[in-house]
Amino acid sequence: MTISQRRERLRRRLEAADLPAMLVTDLVNVHYLSGFTGSNAALLVRVDDETPVLATDGRYRTQAAAQCPDAEVIIERACAPCLGRRAGADGVRRLGFESHVVTVDAYTALSKAAGDGVELVRAPGVVEALREIKDAGEIAILRLACEAADAALTDLVARGGLRPGRTERQVRNELEALMLEHGADGPSFETIVATGANSAIPHHRPTDAVLAAGDFVKIDFGALVAGYHSDTTRTFVLGQAAQWQRDIYELVATAQQAGCEALAPGMSLSAVDAASRQVIADAGYAENFGHGLGHGVGLQIHEAPGINATAAGTLLAGAAVTVEPGVYLPDRGGVRIEDTLVVGETAPELLSRFPKELAIL
Amino acid sequence: MTISQRRERLRRRLEAADLPAMLVTDLVNVHYLSGFTGSNAALLVRVDDETPVLATDGRYRTQAAAQCPDAEVIIERACAPCLGRRAGADGVRRLGFESHVVTVDAYTALSKAAGDGVELVRAPGVVEALREIKDAGEIAILRLACEAADAALTDLVARGGLRPGRTERQVRNELEALMLEHGADGPSFETIVATGANSAIPHHRPTDAVLAAGDFVKIDFGALVAGYHSDTTRTFVLGQAAQWQRDIYELVATAQQAGCEALAPGMSLSAVDAASRQVIADAGYAENFGHGLGHGVGLQIHEAPGINATAAGTLLAGAAVTVEPGVYLPDRGGVRIEDTLVVGETAPELLSRFPKELAIL
Repeated sequence: MTISQRRERLRRRLEAADLPAMLVTDLVNVHYLSGFTGSNAALLVRVDDETPVLATDGRYRTQAAAQCPDAEVIIERACAPCLGRRAGADGVRRLGFESHVVTVDAYTALSKAAGDGVELVRAPGVVEALREIKDAGEIAILRLACEAADAALTDLVARGGLRPGRTERQVRNELEALMLEHGADGPSFETIVATGANSAIPHHRPTDAVLAAGDFVKIDFGALVAGYHSDTTRTFVLGQAAQWQRDIYELVATAQQAGCEALAPGMSLSAVDAASRQVIADAGYAENFGHGLGHGVGLQIHEAPGINATAAGTLLAGAAVTVEPGVYLPDRGGVRIEDTLVVGETAPELLSRFPKELAIL
Repeated sequence: MTISQRRERLRRRLEAADLPAMLVTDLVNVHYLSGFTGSNAALLVRVDDETPVLATDGRYRTQAAAQCPDAEVIIERACAPCLGRRAGADGVRRLGFESHVVTVDAYTALSKAAGDGVELVRAPGVVEALREIKDAGEIAILRLACEAADAALTDLVARGGLRPGRTERQVRNELEALMLEHGADGPSFETIVATGANSAIPHHRPTDAVLAAGDFVKIDFGALVAGYHSDTTRTFVLGQAAQWQRDIYELVATAQQAGCEALAPGMSLSAVDAASRQVIADAGYAENFGHGLGHGVGLQIHEAPGINATAAGTLLAGAAVTVEPGVYLPDRGGVRIEDTLVVGETAPELLSRFPKELAIL
């Protein structure tokens, strides 16, 4: 799908909602609908005009022309008010805006600029809903991002990067450097390396804690490639695995597989969560899995759909999501196994391909 | 200054504004006022109560207790509405809120939760204004961040990392890995490495472009340490410098020095910008310096005060700011030299200490 086709999808949705135009101010949404990646911009999309209007400031004049050859570009620092005024001048009487993004102060400025003749209509999450279904180009980039992450972790393990005596920070540093070497633009979020009892903390940040024989080492990481985020978690054991470690690893692996198998178009999001969570609950560890099963990934590391017990809605074909159950035993250790997958009409496509068997290093 | 002293400063400002309480929802501001670093939180600060109320969700129960021992912690996913309700229950009749942060939809939810008895009062930028003056602990961390960046660039140059044949991305990868080795938690923003004609693009992103003899190589980078951001730019020449390169380098260096010398408490922000810009304008390059002179740095890479031609207000003692003039000659090359400094009662303290003489590598 080309970027102009994405805007065409948006125009059809606006038409259905009786909105002649929409002002997009979320920068990720602007990127999605225009290709523009600068840090100050807004985009006006009108149902009856194929040419969108992009506003940005003088720093991005050249970049905007290069990235958005089919848009009209306006150079103006106050992007949203400028496009609100433009919409009014164009005769737009109802203008959708991102009420989940626009702040109270920004709304005041926008409303003043648009003038009395323009009714501002809340349109939260409209573009995010479009983004939920990835097109072939997006999936290709997500595949690259997952491959860069897989290759980095493979290298890290092959060169003995996970061994007693190293610190969590050293492991993080090496893994992030390896992702860059494998083509990533950076890590897709703050890498988690958690050893021993730290592995029981779901979102532990790397410290100078030293990896020791018998530890679980939990690594949650991802690569950023061309704006797209991968997200993978693997948990290893150093030296020798105790029986309790084998048990919870096996349990989480089974739950993770159940979650992946539940990924089908039309499945309710809460049912996908339940399919995996039930495995853990049946083993008596319900209390030790305190977070949702997964989330969408794409231009953001967390995006629609959320997969958790209270999520409304169903899974759509083409959604890219994580499946990441965990069992955390406070002060002992924890296991999380996480993949990034794309929901397919038949089976989901697994993008993160690093092996999931318990690896004792 | 302790974190409770930061809240005390806020309480005095609220009192002066006749606000009995304030709801802080910006996560950086919550971090500043409570020490909490999770990704979902809000903080209620009441003038007549030294104990703030922090709301966060179940993922952060342990972390919140550890990071905010002197706060009352409420576990609830919808943090802001929950504290709005709490304020109403506490008898707060006027509640300040961050109207520059709270979205239109979030305002609706907050207003409903707080109830008719609570007047929501816009209080934009109140915490940001406090953050503008860094305390001794913050300056010590900024110093560490600048040292990590300095050490990484020193190593990069010493080991011949800047040489013809390497790509911009390779240089970026090595520099970022070196910052991690020197104690950074990560880069403080997307590193810029721009060679040859790319150096004329102020915010160029690293590509596979190859460094060549005679090129300018412009590197704009920073280290993130304990939440604080450093920001430095240096420009090198490879092999041999042409006269035009020496000329614009010298010009930018002179302008940068003029900007640094203008950093004094009470100076108007636009006058600081002018002190540096005039040097470039006098040489006939006004059109080739299209961005502001600098910005505050701290818990964010860009924060108050902005130093540019249209900035209102004056410089305060204790502000941490960048000074970063540049001259960009399209399709030829550009120079930017940037330091991070702290405004002092007498002279500013230079935090980024990598040499600024033209280095021909």
